[in-house]
Amino acid sequence: MSSARDDAHAQVGSEDVTRWWSTAVSDIEPGVIRLRGYPVQQLIGGASFVDLIWLMVRGDLPTPSQSALLERALVAAVDHGPQAPSIAAARMAATCGVGLNNAMATGVNLLGDVHGGAGQQCMDLLAQVVGRSDVPLEESVADVLSDLRAAGRYVPGFGHRFHPKDPRRDPLLAAVQDQADAGLVGGEHLRAALEVERQLSAGRARPVPMNIDGATAVIYSELGFDPELGRGLFVLSRSVGILAHAWEESGSGRRIKGPIPPPLLPAYSGPPPRDVPGVSRSAS
Amino acid sequence: MSSARDDAHAQVGSEDVTRWWSTAVSDIEPGVIRLRGYPVQQLIGGASFVDLIWLMVRGDLPTPSQSALLERALVAAVDHGPQAPSIAAARMAATCGVGLNNAMATGVNLLGDVHGGAGQQCMDLLAQVVGRSDVPLEESVADVLSDLRAAGRYVPGFGHRFHPKDPRRDPLLAAVQDQADAGLVGGEHLRAALEVERQLSAGRARPVPMNIDGATAVIYSELGFDPELGRGLFVLSRSVGILAHAWEESGSGRRIKGPIPPPLLPAYSGPPPRDVPGVSRSAS
Amino acid sequence: MSSARDDAHAQVGSEDVTRWWSTAVSDIEPGVIRLRGYPVQQLIGGASFVDLIWLMVRGDLPTPSQSALLERALVAAVDHGPQAPSIAAARMAATCGVGLNNAMATGVNLLGDVHGGAGQQCMDLLAQVVGRSDVPLEESVADVLSDLRAAGRYVPGFGHRFHPKDPRRDPLLAAVQDQADAGLVGGEHLRAALEVERQLSAGRARPVPMNIDGATAVIYSELGFDPELGRGLFVLSRSVGILAHAWEESGSGRRIKGPIPPPLLPAYSGPPPRDVPGVSRSAS
Amino acid sequence: MSSARDDAHAQVGSEDVTRWWSTAVSDIEPGVIRLRGYPVQQLIGGASFVDLIWLMVRGDLPTPSQSALLERALVAAVDHGPQAPSIAAARMAATCGVGLNNAMATGVNLLGDVHGGAGQQCMDLLAQVVGRSDVPLEESVADVLSDLRAAGRYVPGFGHRFHPKDPRRDPLLAAVQDQADAGLVGGEHLRAALEVERQLSAGRARPVPMNIDGATAVIYSELGFDPELGRGLFVLSRSVGILAHAWEESGSGRRIKGPIPPPLLPAYSGPPPRDVPGVSRSAS
Repeated sequence: MSSARDDAHAQVGSEDVTRWWSTAVSDIEPGVIRLRGYPVQQLIGGASFVDLIWLMVRGDLPTPSQSALLERALVAAVDHGPQAPSIAAARMAATCGVGLNNAMATGVNLLGDVHGGAGQQCMDLLAQVVGRSDVPLEESVADVLSDLRAAGRYVPGFGHRFHPKDPRRDPLLAAVQDQADAGLVGGEHLRAALEVERQLSAGRARPVPMNIDGATAVIYSELGFDPELGRGLFVLSRSVGILAHAWEESGSGRRIKGPIPPPLLPAYSGPPPRDVPGVSRSAS
Repeated sequence: MSSARDDAHAQVGSEDVTRWWSTAVSDIEPGVIRLRGYPVQQLIGGASFVDLIWLMVRGDLPTPSQSALLERALVAAVDHGPQAPSIAAARMAATCGVGLNNAMATGVNLLGDVHGGAGQQCMDLLAQVVGRSDVPLEESVADVLSDLRAAGRYVPGFGHRFHPKDPRRDPLLAAVQDQADAGLVGGEHLRAALEVERQLSAGRARPVPMNIDGATAVIYSELGFDPELGRGLFVLSRSVGILAHAWEESGSGRRIKGPIPPPLLPAYSGPPPRDVPGVSRSAS
Repeated sequence: MSSARDDAHAQVGSEDVTRWWSTAVSDIEPGVIRLRGYPVQQLIGGASFVDLIWLMVRGDLPTPSQSALLERALVAAVDHGPQAPSIAAARMAATCGVGLNNAMATGVNLLGDVHGGAGQQCMDLLAQVVGRSDVPLEESVADVLSDLRAAGRYVPGFGHRFHPKDPRRDPLLAAVQDQADAGLVGGEHLRAALEVERQLSAGRARPVPMNIDGATAVIYSELGFDPELGRGLFVLSRSVGILAHAWEESGSGRRIKGPIPPPLLPAYSGPPPRDVPGVSRSAS
Repeated sequence: MSSARDDAHAQVGSEDVTRWWSTAVSDIEPGVIRLRGYPVQQLIGGASFVDLIWLMVRGDLPTPSQSALLERALVAAVDHGPQAPSIAAARMAATCGVGLNNAMATGVNLLGDVHGGAGQQCMDLLAQVVGRSDVPLEESVADVLSDLRAAGRYVPGFGHRFHPKDPRRDPLLAAVQDQADAGLVGGEHLRAALEVERQLSAGRARPVPMNIDGATAVIYSELGFDPELGRGLFVLSRSVGILAHAWEESGSGRRIKGPIPPPLLPAYSGPPPRDVPGVSRSAS
């Protein structure tokens, strides 16, 4: 019976076990903490928190201009109010008797493909446009938009449910343009996004401007992040708002906060009252 | 530098590693799955799902009467509507582009000390009452209630925010009474809970009847479960409602469902508009 | 400034708010709890826990044979040991100072497309095979397998990392066969799965038998569940094992249990030690 | 039946609903995003990410020296390797077919009272020491330590499982000392923590130095944060490491990564093989 277990012990030593958990992110030994090779005691004071974010996910420290651009994107997305399900869920969690970390995890868990993934999808779109060096930008964008339309899909990163124009768009794009003018970033993802915006708005009474997901996607793309990391960086940024809201709610003294105030009750749209077959009505 | 790592490999073999993950719950080898010693192929068809719940957390199969009582408690608590934050959060999650498992985890994560813990706390209270064999029940209950009052705390398991009388109370307590009459359970936790209810309601216009947490606490206590498992069993039960609601919402086609319908906006109670120091107003 | 808020209040009344949370699952009012129209007090004692699972996600009570088949699938999948990341994560969580519900949520959260989704994907595959009434089963299966192979994808629900033959396969399939023979289920999904198994194993030294995901996918498909619910039902089942393991670990007294026992340390594969630019070495 | 619902609609208008979700954190209207009163477009470029963290949880922007001290604490705690259950769980999640946000939530969810709460508890301890102005510091610390010893509890924030001396201690405390010398922080929490360290180490061969939780607790306390926010800030910091590790693992191509490498199997410590009563052995 236990021969499978014994055989395994013979084949696999503890070196294999520690290799199973191998990492290039950090090197921890008694008295030693190195992050991507750098001693943590040098990083404390020697690097900013935004530098650390870059270092940890990219493997090397950013230049000052890279760090500055990343910082703007992180600042821009910290919060969009309790109307967002991630924030609302974290606030409700804070009234349920769980730790602040659990409330934060609840909010983060909701930043999925639809709620937190538009930036990542916009980065994919921009990469697709920029990747076509064979045709002019205008044509490349038209093709991509036509494909999306044919598939009946949204154009991620453009338009907003209620902001006619997202106030975060202009300062973010202006910062990218400045760095592009100075040769600090390539600028091709910015140009691609502006062309998408132009084509989407052409001939419409109400334009379809880039939203926060689109504008941060431009920044993350210009900085060379993988699209999936776009989601991760958004999570780091929005975690700040999630914390602020969970903390505010935990100070309210409310217990088991539901989505709507009592005595309001959710409407009911199901079958009318009925009896369980075989159970005498007196049981009710 | 790597001597700490080398020393560790010398001291700790792969047997220590598999022992680190040692368990008495299940025994898995190639071609073999035994749960608490029983071959899974015998359990399939040979035991009910409720039997399995008991087996897995208690270590042995229940008697038919134990299984029947546990089943009633599990049935009773499956759902209490989207007004509950756990259900609301799971429904919102289902519109955010995450898996059904992530939506369920979101709901379960909210069943904390306040939202899901009253049953566990009521079990602790009943254990405290029953544990005092030196004084009559009436006195033991009076002492415990007096302590809670002095500490300014709720009496967990009694009263309800909006049910004048919880419809689940009577059928659950009747089932316990039947088993107590038949000598299948001891009945002392039932008697303790009824005495708490009597004393809480004495002299009040509106009685304070046992709620679902109290009634299931009686069952779990009579069946010998540890109080903390009371929470675990409640989670298993409520997971059914969480799944049903998340699934219903995922069929609605809504995206990023917030707590209140648009165009409603959360009220704002913070500081009035102001400028960031040192930033020229033209930036806005 | 607040005109948007005022306008919203004028357009949207509290009826719209309660409709936003409308549900057909349960009807909760003071003194009333009805699940899919049935009074909860009749369901307690009048329906099994498995009946409730069916009722809540399907909207109506199952027949006894439907309930029996569902019960076997739920029993079969409760646990597969701490080697599974969902179980390991829940056990580690239980040592970190969070509630049992948080530990369970941690495990459930990991049952994603890869870890918990094979059943759902197998249901999609079986639906695709069964949906082609124009060609013989053999051809329909061959086409579907050929498409998967061309896409470089796994065949979900078949083969296992270490069980040469999953001990849960036979009793589950035998139960379906019995119900098919008695005309209680159609049997077409069973036949489709067996044909997939036959074709996958043809000409191989080591057969590729159906695993637990495949065998439960057959049951859920025969019972008419939506594929996405396959995941949900698996989560309910595996939650039992997650609870049992988290509970066992919480009794161990361990604090902050890592994946490998101390003093073992994860291997490090990153850059060698280096200095942070511009930081004097004395800082280290 | 629906009179409870109708009454509720009569009593509660949509203004009450938006007030239920009232917040002082952010003010969102069409075209407007203000965080704590500041227009987001001024904050982008006008404030650092660390400033935003302070602003969001405290309500006002920090001074440059406050921001600098907070930044060091946030940098210091970003990662401590995959040995930590939060990191290990996030890495395993990343191989299970869930989103990067779900993997991050999994890690954050584990930063509970034991794994992520020592800093918060140390802040409580320092507040207790500092709050006693009636006795000399030495006596106040002795009393607090004596109480902890009597209760059989750890002294949170001091000592480490394997760092003889945590390399993050000195640079963090030096930064606080510098600001105390310059009159930028009061310094009383630093003095309290150093006295705790002194008394804990007195007469021992191996000293019990402050660890990362203790050193960051000093900073957060000196900066006037509520102890519970100590946990929240730690979560923000460690989320960076959680992201980096989840991202690294997602690039490994592994599927369903367990805690130990195959073919190792967890040890089994439960009852020996046995038959389910009433099931014929042929069933196995």
